[in-house]
Amino acid sequence: MTHDLRFSGVVPILATPFHADESVDTESLDRLVRFMAALGVDGVTVLGVLGESNRLSDRDREVAISAAVAAAGAMPVIVGASHPGTRATLDLIAMAADLGAKGVMVAASAEPVPNDDRLFEYYRRVGEGSALPIILQDHPASTSVHMTVPLLARIATEVPRIAGIKEEATPTPPKLRAIRKALGGRELNIMTGLGALYGHFDLEAGSAGFNTGFAFPEVLMEMVAAARAADWDRARRIYTRFLPLIVFEQQPGVAVRKDILRRRGLLAGNTVRHPGAGLPPGASEQLDALIEATLPGVDLTKPLDRAGL
Amino acid sequence: MTHDLRFSGVVPILATPFHADESVDTESLDRLVRFMAALGVDGVTVLGVLGESNRLSDRDREVAISAAVAAAGAMPVIVGASHPGTRATLDLIAMAADLGAKGVMVAASAEPVPNDDRLFEYYRRVGEGSALPIILQDHPASTSVHMTVPLLARIATEVPRIAGIKEEATPTPPKLRAIRKALGGRELNIMTGLGALYGHFDLEAGSAGFNTGFAFPEVLMEMVAAARAADWDRARRIYTRFLPLIVFEQQPGVAVRKDILRRRGLLAGNTVRHPGAGLPPGASEQLDALIEATLPGVDLTKPLDRAGL
Amino acid sequence: MTHDLRFSGVVPILATPFHADESVDTESLDRLVRFMAALGVDGVTVLGVLGESNRLSDRDREVAISAAVAAAGAMPVIVGASHPGTRATLDLIAMAADLGAKGVMVAASAEPVPNDDRLFEYYRRVGEGSALPIILQDHPASTSVHMTVPLLARIATEVPRIAGIKEEATPTPPKLRAIRKALGGRELNIMTGLGALYGHFDLEAGSAGFNTGFAFPEVLMEMVAAARAADWDRARRIYTRFLPLIVFEQQPGVAVRKDILRRRGLLAGNTVRHPGAGLPPGASEQLDALIEATLPGVDLTKPLDRAGL
Amino acid sequence: MTHDLRFSGVVPILATPFHADESVDTESLDRLVRFMAALGVDGVTVLGVLGESNRLSDRDREVAISAAVAAAGAMPVIVGASHPGTRATLDLIAMAADLGAKGVMVAASAEPVPNDDRLFEYYRRVGEGSALPIILQDHPASTSVHMTVPLLARIATEVPRIAGIKEEATPTPPKLRAIRKALGGRELNIMTGLGALYGHFDLEAGSAGFNTGFAFPEVLMEMVAAARAADWDRARRIYTRFLPLIVFEQQPGVAVRKDILRRRGLLAGNTVRHPGAGLPPGASEQLDALIEATLPGVDLTKPLDRAGL
Repeated sequence: MTHDLRFSGVVPILATPFHADESVDTESLDRLVRFMAALGVDGVTVLGVLGESNRLSDRDREVAISAAVAAAGAMPVIVGASHPGTRATLDLIAMAADLGAKGVMVAASAEPVPNDDRLFEYYRRVGEGSALPIILQDHPASTSVHMTVPLLARIATEVPRIAGIKEEATPTPPKLRAIRKALGGRELNIMTGLGALYGHFDLEAGSAGFNTGFAFPEVLMEMVAAARAADWDRARRIYTRFLPLIVFEQQPGVAVRKDILRRRGLLAGNTVRHPGAGLPPGASEQLDALIEATLPGVDLTKPLDRAGL
Repeated sequence: MTHDLRFSGVVPILATPFHADESVDTESLDRLVRFMAALGVDGVTVLGVLGESNRLSDRDREVAISAAVAAAGAMPVIVGASHPGTRATLDLIAMAADLGAKGVMVAASAEPVPNDDRLFEYYRRVGEGSALPIILQDHPASTSVHMTVPLLARIATEVPRIAGIKEEATPTPPKLRAIRKALGGRELNIMTGLGALYGHFDLEAGSAGFNTGFAFPEVLMEMVAAARAADWDRARRIYTRFLPLIVFEQQPGVAVRKDILRRRGLLAGNTVRHPGAGLPPGASEQLDALIEATLPGVDLTKPLDRAGL
Repeated sequence: MTHDLRFSGVVPILATPFHADESVDTESLDRLVRFMAALGVDGVTVLGVLGESNRLSDRDREVAISAAVAAAGAMPVIVGASHPGTRATLDLIAMAADLGAKGVMVAASAEPVPNDDRLFEYYRRVGEGSALPIILQDHPASTSVHMTVPLLARIATEVPRIAGIKEEATPTPPKLRAIRKALGGRELNIMTGLGALYGHFDLEAGSAGFNTGFAFPEVLMEMVAAARAADWDRARRIYTRFLPLIVFEQQPGVAVRKDILRRRGLLAGNTVRHPGAGLPPGASEQLDALIEATLPGVDLTKPLDRAGL
Repeated sequence: MTHDLRFSGVVPILATPFHADESVDTESLDRLVRFMAALGVDGVTVLGVLGESNRLSDRDREVAISAAVAAAGAMPVIVGASHPGTRATLDLIAMAADLGAKGVMVAASAEPVPNDDRLFEYYRRVGEGSALPIILQDHPASTSVHMTVPLLARIATEVPRIAGIKEEATPTPPKLRAIRKALGGRELNIMTGLGALYGHFDLEAGSAGFNTGFAFPEVLMEMVAAARAADWDRARRIYTRFLPLIVFEQQPGVAVRKDILRRRGLLAGNTVRHPGAGLPPGASEQLDALIEATLPGVDLTKPLDRAGL
């Protein structure tokens, strides 16, 4: 476990827990962060898409960041700070810095119509005004912004504050390879996400690890460890075993993931902020069967036994 | 001029003025609001799309609302309070109410995928929790949400807090007529916007007036007065005369409108928040010629002589 | 009137007339094309967005092109030939060439995700395989493809078959100027469209004329003539007078325009292909009043008296 | 194997094979169809999204349908016939019927703005004019049309020609259940697709089987057989084993799938029509490893031994 912003290994994206009245449940967030720290992950990210950041007020953000930082100890906390306005992005970054975060993650906005020069200028200004290292997030499914490899490489090369890339434009493996090639000499970690759906293929293509919300980070840690040891058979075996769970979890909507975290004893409930969808009918029963088939008899509230995966 | 929320006549949408460093220019905002009050408009709306609300932090919003309310006197201030999250929408409404606004304007969000029941439920919850009257904004060009006439009528009928509709789905005239028909007995004012591009046709179709950002509200006031007096020739003559200016102003981007307000002595500058586009090359010269042709020799810093339009 | 593909002046975009059963009404199309030829326009474009080309089978296209070419005499016919597939674009171009068209108009497709290199390659291949001169159409409102000025200039410069640009990305005036500047020495006509909504401003910015569907091309011809004679007062006066009609016509949906062409005695009916919207309730009455106010007592079935505009 | 349009079991969606010059490779298509018939699938679908139907001319479609029908023998061929125009949809259906197809698949178009009444009317008209049974495809990822459960049920109930639903709106399991419930008494098969990504969960939720392009239909046939026999352990085991391959195949772009079909000896090449993307760098090597891990030593050109899965 490292405590500076290396952006490699496993950095879970955290859900934002809510009480039944949709206020931020800081107690659950505290428990969630401590659980991750105890696992030995390389950091956590709060207020990403999974964190329902688009449904939060700035005050909610403050509450969530504070709780996460307080619980994290030496483990770095990265804060999602994307905003359609450049100055407002910097305001969010300043708030994160003030509250003790160690980095921010910033995705570009589709408003106004993006083009390469406009996108570069956005990151240039954000980089110039940021007191924290920045993770450049490339996630067209949520942003509708499609960034080319040369643009990503240009931003990463010319904006010193960029400390890593979170690559989530499918298909990810060829884009990972192309970015690494385009970066040339520049050392920069690229992590992948998307719930680890393409996890094994991403690792094969050189992903530095996972920055995603899969509710069993132990599995991802073991996959990364196997990949680092070049034990591809083991990496693939673990990936295959857990892939049905990965697939089920990454369905649209965050309720399934929140419910698994609830089953792990980390969240008090699975409340999603309206108008986000709650757990759909039938999902709970499917999840029962799926978890039992994948982890028969296992106590989910304990860290999984990594050696036995 | 009425001082309760009648939502009819002319309710200008205000630009949010910024200093060169993009901080909120409260002095210009004060001047802008007082100018509108002196014209005798029926209210003003702040923090709409024209107000660049999507590029503001919550603190920026607070500053702008406070300045507008302080300058407005008895004239009602309506605050744009749209937010993808229902609870966050209510937070924005509560802030507006605390700061002395008289109403809010709320457009629906495209996230998650909207359908009639989900949209209705959003407005039902917002209506239930709001201390202020709500203007339902139907503006698919900015929201990507397409609301049918039966849905609009249902929301307007079953959510008592709805105090008016701002209809901006093109073509507006047939939609205006259809909504009025669908509302049946329910008395509800429907205003139109879109920079008054379809102004004359909207009035013909029964629009209660204009809730839009055209920088010469005097023109719109006179059109509404003519329409109310059934002097359609006069309404059409004024519309035709100012239509080139209306067309030029409603081009994408808010810089042109801000520059006209600057020329009217209301804004200190025409700064648009990044990444919004500033005044494009050549626009200033075209504006010079256009204003000179439309209002030859007129001192723009004074209210226009309405009788002479 | 020139009979090669100069792409300047006025090149009306034609509606595709349909019988009540939605089959192509070649008789009306014949009448429409002959009327335009008699006006002395510089060419006509068929099968654009206004021509409902996206709702036609290839056989329908063949019928419409044949009828237009047969009626056009020496006047050039340009055919919309955009298609998501490159090879299918070339098939459409080959059909147009076989049937006697003098040029084609091609807009890029948003599928798959466009980027500068992919868009360039599309036009490069289309240019290489086309037997006809190509008009590059930049119309993001219908294509969702946003092309930058450097990209447009690169395509225009490196693909010899490009014979003109139809620029319809708002705001058009600054983009027109920027493209002309970026083209440097390359002689290339850029026409504008959008129903002539920004007509006067486009001419000021250097538009070579109008390639659009406004149902009174005589008005546009006179505006272009005035602009060429540097009589900007006259150009502006005509624009202002007809702007309410221009605005009304360019509302979403093609039914209004078809109904005006019907009133002009050119189309037998105003049928729009399903699921396109027909003339909405109330539009006909508004159109009556608007036309009477704009052209009182004029016989619409005759060419307008241009000198008297 | 049944030979009428039951729409259950496994109905592979076929790629459209192309020669290197992008012309339709009917020889490969013949081989592909015969292979499927020999496997005993319940039918095949041509000219879907995977079939690159959006990049084909009507003449290309004719060639592909003819080849598929000729090779299919008694096995039913379903033809993708979606088109933005209602009359053009009927033209495509008529072509399919003339050429011997046994059914068509129709997805709604986003143009013009869809709403429930407009979508219903589209399917009502298509149903009225179609000589063939219709599969209603619900695939918002490609159409941008989001159909609610009540709308789907209404279409299925009131349009007698609807012979099945292909449900591909994620998350699919709850939507499957909701549609079945909403259909009440109406017997109607609902199949799922999306490359079988959610295959096991779809079967649990009552999917009638798979109508998708996964290049190993034998696997899907065995999963369906296991589900029908209520042997859920076997179904899940097969799903888990092949899920990495399923995930890899369903990445955006059809080149990976075409390359697997090439490896199976069915397609002469993996050509994708421009501007579709070809096989990205590195994908071939990843595919080698993945296939070797999933099906070690197996001759892919032979049908898989289903009992041994």
